[in-house]
Amino acid sequence: MTAAGAKIRVGSFSISLDGFGAGPGQDLQNPLGVRGPELMEWFVSTRAWRRMQGESGGETGVDNGMAERGFEDVGAWILGRNMFGPVRGPWPDHSWRGWWGEEPPYHTPVFVLTHHARPPLPMAGGTEFRFVTDGIESALRQARDAAGGRDVRIGGGVATIRQYLRARLIDDLHLALRPVLMGSGEHLWRDIDLRALGYECVETVAGERATHVILRRRA
Amino acid sequence: MTAAGAKIRVGSFSISLDGFGAGPGQDLQNPLGVRGPELMEWFVSTRAWRRMQGESGGETGVDNGMAERGFEDVGAWILGRNMFGPVRGPWPDHSWRGWWGEEPPYHTPVFVLTHHARPPLPMAGGTEFRFVTDGIESALRQARDAAGGRDVRIGGGVATIRQYLRARLIDDLHLALRPVLMGSGEHLWRDIDLRALGYECVETVAGERATHVILRRRA
Repeated sequence: MTAAGAKIRVGSFSISLDGFGAGPGQDLQNPLGVRGPELMEWFVSTRAWRRMQGESGGETGVDNGMAERGFEDVGAWILGRNMFGPVRGPWPDHSWRGWWGEEPPYHTPVFVLTHHARPPLPMAGGTEFRFVTDGIESALRQARDAAGGRDVRIGGGVATIRQYLRARLIDDLHLALRPVLMGSGEHLWRDIDLRALGYECVETVAGERATHVILRRRA
Repeated sequence: MTAAGAKIRVGSFSISLDGFGAGPGQDLQNPLGVRGPELMEWFVSTRAWRRMQGESGGETGVDNGMAERGFEDVGAWILGRNMFGPVRGPWPDHSWRGWWGEEPPYHTPVFVLTHHARPPLPMAGGTEFRFVTDGIESALRQARDAAGGRDVRIGGGVATIRQYLRARLIDDLHLALRPVLMGSGEHLWRDIDLRALGYECVETVAGERATHVILRRRA
């Protein structure tokens, strides 16, 4: 926990009925894996998503309300490197600047987990990518400091969330359970005993294209 | 598929958010495993459940509607041996007559999978337990014949459903997804790629105490 009730949380993270957070065969053409976009269908219809893309319109129902909740009071983000981009290994140069163009939708510091150092990358609109090479706890410490009393949101991907779950460092998770079967891919909680780690489901909300569940770690 | 549109189906089968159909440590005191009753809480409140117990009353909302659907047009049941009772190994005698008293709630032939032969056991109200020692396909063949054009319902437990899933012998599954984390126990679909087996989610219904999902195998 950060000071004054600020939380470490996951928001709007989509999983299939059978628990996969990404499909199989991730690559540049399929950043969410083959069939991964099926997981996102609830989100791309919402006003929240369209705003992230700098567009107007979008649906304003239950799914949108849950998505918007996820952006409230977030002071810093943490992303795994694959969420930042498709480049693997040492950075060949600094030309990759994220998936989101010159004004990414974060508007806060974003700590990117990587094994390869790189200078901070300030972007338009208040986003600054900062590259952390000394592990998840260091990234979280830096994110808390940067968040200034607001929440830290862990954006994913699956491997990053799994690491933070196992370390019992996440307070709240909002998962959007999509009515699809993925069959294979990256599983969010396989071999992780969420109950033993202290998590319980505190809320379930039926949305238009997903069932939203809130998991919370008991104090 | 049986003739004339009759189906092989699973109904009202409860699983946790993390996919467990029974808790850990099943024994005579805990036939559903420790914490297993948390999976059943949506069901025991319903009128359908109370009728099964020979009682009146019970809730008549969405959860009850889904439970009642599961009993419609069922001509035969299949149960794993542990669903029939706690006796393991050869039958010491024929004194165990099921968990349900003299008038079980099935009112049809019920085929019990076991490695140990035993004569058929007719009960009050039309239920007859028939013990099948030559495997799941034989049990299904016998159940289809007995069902006379109505559906065959596979009652569980988890291991039995997993066997029939892997053999692609189930047409429809109605799962009641409970907003609880089990953490460990018997997992319904771990290491089973439901998508590769041809299943898809065709319906999601928010109930009072569970989210109901219908999985169907594509023809």
